[in-house]
Amino acid sequence: MFKDKFREGIISARDFYREDIEYILQKGHEMLSVKNSNILSGKILATLFFEPSTRTRLSFESAMHRLGGNVIGFQSGDVSSIKKGESLADTIRTVENYCDCIVIRHPMEGSAKMAARFANIPIINAGSGSKEHPTQALLDLLTINEEMGKLDGINIGVMGDLKYGRTVHSLAMLLSNFDVNIYFISPEELKMRGRYKEYLYQQRKVKFKELTNYRKVLDILDVLYMTRIQKERFADLEEYERVKNFYVFSRKDLKQTKDNFKLLHPLPRINEITPSIDNSEKSIYFKQTGYGLHMRKAILAELLED
Amino acid sequence: MFKDKFREGIISARDFYREDIEYILQKGHEMLSVKNSNILSGKILATLFFEPSTRTRLSFESAMHRLGGNVIGFQSGDVSSIKKGESLADTIRTVENYCDCIVIRHPMEGSAKMAARFANIPIINAGSGSKEHPTQALLDLLTINEEMGKLDGINIGVMGDLKYGRTVHSLAMLLSNFDVNIYFISPEELKMRGRYKEYLYQQRKVKFKELTNYRKVLDILDVLYMTRIQKERFADLEEYERVKNFYVFSRKDLKQTKDNFKLLHPLPRINEITPSIDNSEKSIYFKQTGYGLHMRKAILAELLED
Amino acid sequence: MFKDKFREGIISARDFYREDIEYILQKGHEMLSVKNSNILSGKILATLFFEPSTRTRLSFESAMHRLGGNVIGFQSGDVSSIKKGESLADTIRTVENYCDCIVIRHPMEGSAKMAARFANIPIINAGSGSKEHPTQALLDLLTINEEMGKLDGINIGVMGDLKYGRTVHSLAMLLSNFDVNIYFISPEELKMRGRYKEYLYQQRKVKFKELTNYRKVLDILDVLYMTRIQKERFADLEEYERVKNFYVFSRKDLKQTKDNFKLLHPLPRINEITPSIDNSEKSIYFKQTGYGLHMRKAILAELLED
Repeated sequence: MFKDKFREGIISARDFYREDIEYILQKGHEMLSVKNSNILSGKILATLFFEPSTRTRLSFESAMHRLGGNVIGFQSGDVSSIKKGESLADTIRTVENYCDCIVIRHPMEGSAKMAARFANIPIINAGSGSKEHPTQALLDLLTINEEMGKLDGINIGVMGDLKYGRTVHSLAMLLSNFDVNIYFISPEELKMRGRYKEYLYQQRKVKFKELTNYRKVLDILDVLYMTRIQKERFADLEEYERVKNFYVFSRKDLKQTKDNFKLLHPLPRINEITPSIDNSEKSIYFKQTGYGLHMRKAILAELLED
Repeated sequence: MFKDKFREGIISARDFYREDIEYILQKGHEMLSVKNSNILSGKILATLFFEPSTRTRLSFESAMHRLGGNVIGFQSGDVSSIKKGESLADTIRTVENYCDCIVIRHPMEGSAKMAARFANIPIINAGSGSKEHPTQALLDLLTINEEMGKLDGINIGVMGDLKYGRTVHSLAMLLSNFDVNIYFISPEELKMRGRYKEYLYQQRKVKFKELTNYRKVLDILDVLYMTRIQKERFADLEEYERVKNFYVFSRKDLKQTKDNFKLLHPLPRINEITPSIDNSEKSIYFKQTGYGLHMRKAILAELLED
Repeated sequence: MFKDKFREGIISARDFYREDIEYILQKGHEMLSVKNSNILSGKILATLFFEPSTRTRLSFESAMHRLGGNVIGFQSGDVSSIKKGESLADTIRTVENYCDCIVIRHPMEGSAKMAARFANIPIINAGSGSKEHPTQALLDLLTINEEMGKLDGINIGVMGDLKYGRTVHSLAMLLSNFDVNIYFISPEELKMRGRYKEYLYQQRKVKFKELTNYRKVLDILDVLYMTRIQKERFADLEEYERVKNFYVFSRKDLKQTKDNFKLLHPLPRINEITPSIDNSEKSIYFKQTGYGLHMRKAILAELLED
C-alpha cells in the first residue's frame, strides 16, 4: 500500500517503483476533476522553505486549501529560529507538534531525509540540495502521462544543467521504472556525474545516451524536458557565465519536432526557451504547473486522509 | 454589469465611470454590516507583493477570510522565483493555476495591466509604479461618501506628493466622475505632471486649482486628503531631503477648518500629520483603514462570487 | 474572571496572580484533549512579528487553526509599512480593523504595552525587548504542572542568561506566586539585574539563591530551566564570546539528577544542552513545545470565544 510504504513521507525518487508511480499517477488523474473537497478538514500542513520558491510552495498550499486543510510555515529561514543558530533537527522536532505534515525545502543534501529521521509525522521533500525533488518528478510524469497517454515507449530528451539540477536527477530516477529512451543533453561542463550514471545504468538498467547538440535528436523526441542553468548552484561564477546561454530553444527548433512533441520545463526559465513559442500547443510548461497542483493534492490526500 | 465589465480585474482607476463607482460604493456600504459570510467558500486569493505593505495586503487577506475564502501568496519578491530571474509574466501564468484571483503590488509601471494580459483569472492592482492604486481610491471614496453623505459638491484638497504618489493619481481619476472642486496642493517640485493635468482637464473636465500654501483654502475645504512624501520614489535623495518636511498639519491648522471637515490619509504617515490630533473627530485616517476592509470585501465578492 | 481581567490582552507576567495562573493552567490541561474545534470560527488572529520566531508564531497560528479561526500577519517588519517609517502605534491602529486579536513580537521594551494602549482589541505579547514573554512562561508552568503534577514545593534552577533573557524574567514572575525554591544560576556577567531581584524579593517574597556552578545543586533540583546565551541581545560581542560556552549540560550532568528530574528549555538551543541526551525521559524541551500549542489554544479561546 502506498500510504503504508510512504508513511514517513516522500523523501527520495529512489524510493519509487513502477507500482508506486502508477498508483499515484492514477490518484493525480482523479484529482483533475476535484476542484474542492473537505477530506483534509482539520489537518494542518507546515511549509518550511529555506530557499526561494513560487510553484512548489504555492501549489502545496493551494492543494491543502482545495482539500479543506490549513497551512502554517515560513518562506525564508531568516524569519525563523534558524537565524539564531537552531539546528534543522530541533526545528523539525518543534514544528511537528503544530501540524500533521511538513513540506521542506533546504539547500543541504539529505536535509529531508534527516528531517524524516527526527519526525513522527510525514515529511515531504520539496527540494534538498542538488539531488532530490521527488514531487516535481511525480508531477512531470503526470504531465507526460496525461498529455501523451503513456510513459512506456517514449523518447525523452532531458536537457540543460544535468550536473546540479535536482529536478533532472529525480526525473531520471522515476523514468528508470519505465521502458523509455532517455537522451541526456548538456554542455560538457554540466554532464551528469559519473556515479549517477553508473547507478542509473547498473542498478536501474536505464537506456540512455549522452550528447551536447540537441538538434541531432530533435526529430525523434516525443518529449523534451528543458531546465534552467541554475546560477545559485555554481561555486565558480565564471563557469556559470560560460554556460548560461548554451541552449536557447527557438521557434525554428520547434518546427523540427514531431507533430505530437511536447516541451516541458520545471520553471523558472530565464532565457533558455524563447517566449515567442509560449502559445504553441507543443509548449506545455505552464500547463505542467497546473498538473503540479493536482499531483500535490494527490500526495497530500494519500499521506493525510484518515 | 460591474462583474462583466471588470471580469479581467481591477487594473486602473481610468476604467471607472460614475455608474461603476456608485455601484461598488453601494456594495461597500452593504458590507459594513456583514462581519462574516461564506459566499467565497472554496475560493483562493493569491496576494503577490513585490513591495512592502501593511494595509493593502492585510485588508485583502482579512476580507477574503471574512467572506469564507482562503489565501496563498508572498510578502516579498525575494522569497519567490523572481529572485532566480523569472519574469513577472511567467510568475502570473504559474500562480493563476493555484488560485481564483490575484492581488498584485509591483514597482513597475503597468505591471498589473501586463499581468491581466497574461492571466485567465481576475487581477487586482494593489499598487503599480507611481501611477495606479485603484482599490485605495475606491476605499477613499467610500470613506468620503459614508462620512460626508455625498461626493457631489464637495471641496477637496489633495496634498503632498502629487508627482510620484499613486494614490492621488487614482483618486483624482475617480473624483473626475463627480461634480467636485479639487485643490492640488504641493511644493513646486512635486506638482502633478503636465500630461496628467491635461488629461484631467481636457478628457475628464475636472475642475481643479493648484497651490502651494494649503492655509489659503483651509476654511473652505470639506475634505483634505494628505499624503506622505515617499522617499522610495525619489531618484535624487537631495530632492527628497528638501521637501520631506514641507507640510506638517497641526492642531492649529485643524482649528481653521469647517465643523464637518474631514482629514484623510492613505497611510503610512511619517510626520506630515501631528499625532496630537489623532483623536479629533475630524481625523478619520484610521477609520479610513476600516472602510478599506469593507471596500475590499465588496470588490472580492463582486469578482469572485459564483 | 480571567476574560474580564485580561480583556486588553496578555501583556506582562506581572499581571498574573495565583488564581489567574491556576485558571489558565486548568484550561490548558483541558486543551490537551481537544485536537480540533470550531469555537473560534469566523475569528481572525493577526501575528505581527518584528523579530524571528519559530515556536511562538507557528504555535499561535496552529492554535488558531485548530480552533477553527484564521490568521493574517507578517513574519518580518521589512515587508510592512514600518519599512517606510510608520510608527508601531499607527500599525496597530490599522491592523486592529482587520482582525479580532493581535499577537506581537517586537524588540522594543514596552512595545506590547504600548500596542494595548492604542488598540481596542486584545493584544498578546509574544516577546517584547528583554523583559517580557508571558505566554512562554505560562506554557513553561503548564509543562511543569503536567509533568510534575504540582508547582508548590519544587526546587527549580533557572540557568543561563538571566540578564537579557525575557523568558526567565517572565518565568520568575509567574513562579513568584507559588511556594517554590528558585536557584538563579548564571555567569557573573549575566546575573539577574539588581532592580529585578529587589522587586522579586521585596514585592513578591520570592525565595531564591544565586550561584554560578550548577553542579552544586544538581542533586536537589526537581526542574532545571536552561536558556540560551542570546547573541542578539549583547551590545558588546566580546562579552558574548566570553560567556557563550559557559554552560554545556551533558550526559554526565544528567546522571547526577533525581529520578523524576525534568530538564526544560524554551528553545532554540545552540550548544548548551548536548544532543546526546535528547532522548532521555528527563529531557522534555521538545514535549514542552507541544504544551505550548495547548497553552496558546487556551489563551486564544479565553480571549476570543464569544
